[in-house]
Order: sequence, then structure tokens, then C-alpha cells
Amino acid sequence: MKKLINAVDDVVKEQLQGMAVAHPELKVNIDPHFVVRADAPVAGKVALVSGGGSGHEPMHGGFVGVGMLDGACPGEVFTSPTPDQMYECAKAVNSGAGVLFIVKNYTGDVLNFETAAEMAHAEGIKVQSILIDDDVAVKDSLYTAGRRGVGTTVLAEKIVGAAAEAGYSLEQCADLCRKVNQYGRTMGMALTSCTVPAAGKPTFELGEDEIELGIGIHGEPGMQRSSIKPVDEIVEIMASSIIDDGAYTRTVREWDNDAGDWVDKTLTDEPFKAGDQVIAFVNSMGGTPVSELYAVYRKLAQVCQAKGIKIARNLIGPYITSLEMQGCSITLLKADDEILKFWDAPVKTPGLRWGA
Amino acid sequence: MKKLINAVDDVVKEQLQGMAVAHPELKVNIDPHFVVRADAPVAGKVALVSGGGSGHEPMHGGFVGVGMLDGACPGEVFTSPTPDQMYECAKAVNSGAGVLFIVKNYTGDVLNFETAAEMAHAEGIKVQSILIDDDVAVKDSLYTAGRRGVGTTVLAEKIVGAAAEAGYSLEQCADLCRKVNQYGRTMGMALTSCTVPAAGKPTFELGEDEIELGIGIHGEPGMQRSSIKPVDEIVEIMASSIIDDGAYTRTVREWDNDAGDWVDKTLTDEPFKAGDQVIAFVNSMGGTPVSELYAVYRKLAQVCQAKGIKIARNLIGPYITSLEMQGCSITLLKADDEILKFWDAPVKTPGLRWGA
Repeated sequence: MKKLINAVDDVVKEQLQGMAVAHPELKVNIDPHFVVRADAPVAGKVALVSGGGSGHEPMHGGFVGVGMLDGACPGEVFTSPTPDQMYECAKAVNSGAGVLFIVKNYTGDVLNFETAAEMAHAEGIKVQSILIDDDVAVKDSLYTAGRRGVGTTVLAEKIVGAAAEAGYSLEQCADLCRKVNQYGRTMGMALTSCTVPAAGKPTFELGEDEIELGIGIHGEPGMQRSSIKPVDEIVEIMASSIIDDGAYTRTVREWDNDAGDWVDKTLTDEPFKAGDQVIAFVNSMGGTPVSELYAVYRKLAQVCQAKGIKIARNLIGPYITSLEMQGCSITLLKADDEILKFWDAPVKTPGLRWGA
Repeated sequence: MKKLINAVDDVVKEQLQGMAVAHPELKVNIDPHFVVRADAPVAGKVALVSGGGSGHEPMHGGFVGVGMLDGACPGEVFTSPTPDQMYECAKAVNSGAGVLFIVKNYTGDVLNFETAAEMAHAEGIKVQSILIDDDVAVKDSLYTAGRRGVGTTVLAEKIVGAAAEAGYSLEQCADLCRKVNQYGRTMGMALTSCTVPAAGKPTFELGEDEIELGIGIHGEPGMQRSSIKPVDEIVEIMASSIIDDGAYTRTVREWDNDAGDWVDKTLTDEPFKAGDQVIAFVNSMGGTPVSELYAVYRKLAQVCQAKGIKIARNLIGPYITSLEMQGCSITLLKADDEILKFWDAPVKTPGLRWGA
């Protein structure tokens, strides 16, 4: 294993220490690990908190800042953060306007954010919790019941972050976040594996000429393995899997502040259709350089055009990664006027920045 | 070789086609290859043009836009662009206020930009050409007489780009660019090699536990090979090599518009000293994820503090890459008020963006 690290046990802590010195506009708490805006809590503003295993940077710590997250809770590499981290983070960012948890659908993340929501409620903090489950590659996976939460998370954090900045209430933020999740679909692929520092060896094995389509961001098995193909063929499969995906129905749990309990909601995501406009997000898994992402985007634009999907905005780069894994993911998010307005709003974070 | 590409011969062309559809604010010319601002030429503004082999993205094409470059000329992967490309690009961006070539010190780039400068001059275009030679690792290298041009190029394009936007004359832009180069020093390292698509096999070989300190951005041999070390040791070596580097004297050729000929200038870069403030740039070679760069930055900040160097600004991410090579480079740029003012100015390019 060759990585730019010191002791394996200190990897996440030292990366956070690096963030702290690099970005004085953030406050990094080391025990327990969480990152918040240095000016948190922001008076009157709904606070957004996300979190998950480390190894996906810049998500989530790199998305803390004006117009995006108020706080992020990094677990150890590819390991869920604890309820304690989430609860302490929520307390640090809550201004009284409430806290929205944005939770990627992995069993550990979901359970721990549920516990944290209950702890926050017991402390008198209004909370809402929205699940991101946008990965069309697999129905259930190694770490998930239902679809995994992947690329749409980045877009949700940007869009709902701008809405919170603009004065949306907790309920409005939750409604928008739920809509973004229901409008977004993602698929990933890997050219190579990645190595979790504590494991010291690749998470999985891929042959010299082998790729995995539908891979998860922790290297969870995907839809199919195949030999390496031209990028156009790969993108055709990924984009078609997203655009031709049918209606998707599942039941999610959301927190009810009035009842002080969880409620089940059945949600159905409608398929894309010709005439939709979208935000197209082409993401590097960490080890693939941005140059190759442009080859992906080139073909993606062709597929979208052929299917009558209009790309209104795009984001191209490494935003939700899997350590040094080579590969990419494609996310398409159906974009209405509300979503585009908040997408275009200024954002100032280490990982995503414009207009500020 | 596993990459997100189609035919090897089409790699650069298709990546440029992807850029064209992704970024309508750019105009991408396919034959010959160059990228310019869609609004070029910008009336009254000095135009900045850079270029070099492809494979280092986002540099340079991703740095075309408001507040940075007016044009970029990508060669084939790790291959210098031709004088023809540079000349056509210069014609496309020249508003009459003149064109500044920013040239990384590689023999092919230098020769071809010299020819292009002469062609532009013959066409009545005022030109200046500033060499970037900031790599402290080696005196001469595989492709270079003198020091190679690396990370300082990114900073020069940002800073001089802002100055041009603010109305600096061609001579003022050239003077500022020369100063930035003389104030900047860089060193790189690699954990892995990279594969040029046309070659189909790694550019060089590194053992399972081997790293190369002082590597060039095309995989040119560096200062030393060693076994993998903790990141703190690696950064200590790199940062000390930069900060303790002595005065550096060499002769460069610059264009004299009045004489219509080249003139030799002897330049001496002064060493860093305690009390200097700097812009610290920690760069990924392409395959190293941003999380590891924060571990690098953490130690770099400690070394700078111990040596009395104050980091005034930082830039952390993949900006001058070597395809999918894993590794990093560190650039320190002594920053006076003029440099900081233009660093902080808005920039809007695919690869670097803030305040716009």
C-alpha cells in the first residue's frame, strides 16, 4: 500500500487537521470528529448536516460552508460516523431554526442518523432527516436495503444549502431535499479497486482488462463485470440505465417533530422523459483524471440529446470519491426552476465554489 | 491499459469535444487544437496564451476564462503543441493590446513558442513570452535545459490573468509574470507511474514500495528514489528542498517587440527567508485523492511555521496533473501585495473558479 499517510490509525484525524489549518472559515472538532462553519450557528437559518464514512472527499467535510452544509460528520474510512458525532454536530450548528440531516442510504448511516435524530429531539432540537437513495445499479447491496445513496447527495447538499441560505424553513428544506433525491439517478463504474488504509490491501480485485459497471462507492459489487470497453460503450450503458430506469417505489422513514416519532412514507420516483431538463454530473471516483471525464461528458451529451433530455447545467470533477479508485459516476437530476435557481446561487466551500 | 477513452488517436480531440459541449463560454477549435474564450478577443485587454502537452488537465484548457487565460494550445499527450497552433490561437485572442505567451520550460514548448512569437510578430501582433522554470528538483532533465516549468504556471496564469483583466499593459503583464516565476518554487513526487495512451504501458516503473522524489510531470526522473515513507517525512524533504533552495541564476530569452528580435536576460531568483508570506499550493498528480493532499498540507504548514514562512493563501487539489499518476507537488510562491490582490480577484474557468 502506497499512500500519502502516516500511521493508519491517524489517517482521518490528520486529514481533518490539514483541513483545519487550510480553511480557517471552518471549525474542525477532533473528538468527536465533525466539521462546522466557523460562524455556526447562523442566526435564523436552518442548519444542514450530513456525514458518512471518510474516503469520499471532498464529500462531506469539503462541502461545509456558505450556501451548502453547516456541518459534516466523517466516520473512519468507509465506516459510518457514530450517533454521538451527529448529535454533537447538530448541537453545534442549530440556531433554533432546526437541523436537516441528509443521509446516504447505507444501513449504518441510516441507523446512526436515526439515533442522532432521537437524541437531538430529546434535547429540544427540531430535526428532519431525508434519505438519499439514487443508485440505479442495484436494488439491494452489500451495505444497503434498497438503492444506495451516491452522486445525488452532492447536488442535494448544494441545492438545499442554497435554499436554507435563502431562508427556507426546516419543512421546506426537507421537501426540497426529498424532491431532489426523487429527481436524481446515478450509476457508477470502476476501472480499478481502492485500498482502505486499515485493510492495507485492495477492497476487491479487478483483472488487468476488467471493469465493473454499477460499482458502489465502497467497492460494493455492481451490476456486471466486463472486459474494458471504449468509453462510448460504457457511457451508453450507464446513461441508458439512468434514463430508461422505470418508476421506483419504496418506503422511507422520516421524523415527525410534532409526534416525536418516525413515520413511514411511500415514495415513487417517476422516470425521466423526453423534454426533461437536467443537471448532468460526471464524477471521478478519485483516481481518474478530469481529462477522461470530458470524454465521458462528450458521449453523455450525445445520449441525452438522442433521448430528448436537455442538459441545463453540468458539474464535472472529483466530488464523491472512493479513495484512489479509478472510474466515474454519472448523475442526472431533473431540474425545475426552483432547483436551477438554487443550483446557480453562490457557494463557498473548499470543495465547491462559485459566485463567492 | 484501462482508461475512459475510445481510439488512442482520438483521445485529445474527444476530450476537447467534451469540453466544448460542457462549457459554451469557451470556443474549442479542433483543427488545429486550441481553446479560447468565446468572447475573444476582449477589446483593449492583453491576451494570455499558454499551452503544452495534454495530460496535465485542467491545465491549460481548463484555465481559459474570465480572469485567467484567453487561449490555450493543447498538444497530443505529453507532446508539445505546434507553432501553428500557438500562432492561430494568438490571432484569435489578440485585441490589439498584445499577447503574452506563458511557456513552461520544456525544450519543445520553448522552441515552438519562439517560432510562434516570430510568426505573430511578422503578422503585426505585439507579443511577449515569459518562461516558467520553477522546479527545484533537478538542474537539467530529460526534456529541459535548466529547471522544468511546473506548479508555478498555474499560479502565474491566475495572477497575471487577473492583472490583464484589470487593464495591465503587455509589458506590465510580462513583468508581473516574470516576477511570479522568480518568486515561485516547486517540487513533486510520485507514488505510481502513468500511462500515455499512445504508448499503452507505464511511462516508467516504480516498485511496490517505491516512490520517486522530484519527479517531473511527464514522469521524468527526479532527485531520488526511495522506499515509501510516512507523508510527514516526504513533505519535510519536499518543503525543505523548496524553502532552503539557494539563489538560482540562469539566462532566459525574451522577445523585444521594438527590436523584433530575442534578447538574453540573466535572472536570479532569491531564496525564501523567514518573514516571507507565501501562497502554498498542494497539487495532486491526478490519481491521488484530495483527502491525502490535506495530510500533505498539514505537515507543510508545520514546516513553514518552523521556518518562519507565513502561508497567506492556499490552493489544494488536482490542477497540474500527469494523467492518472499518484503523487503530489508542493509549490510555494512568495506573495507581495500585488500578487495577493490579483490572486484574490474573481476567476471563472472550468478548472478554477471563485467570486464569479
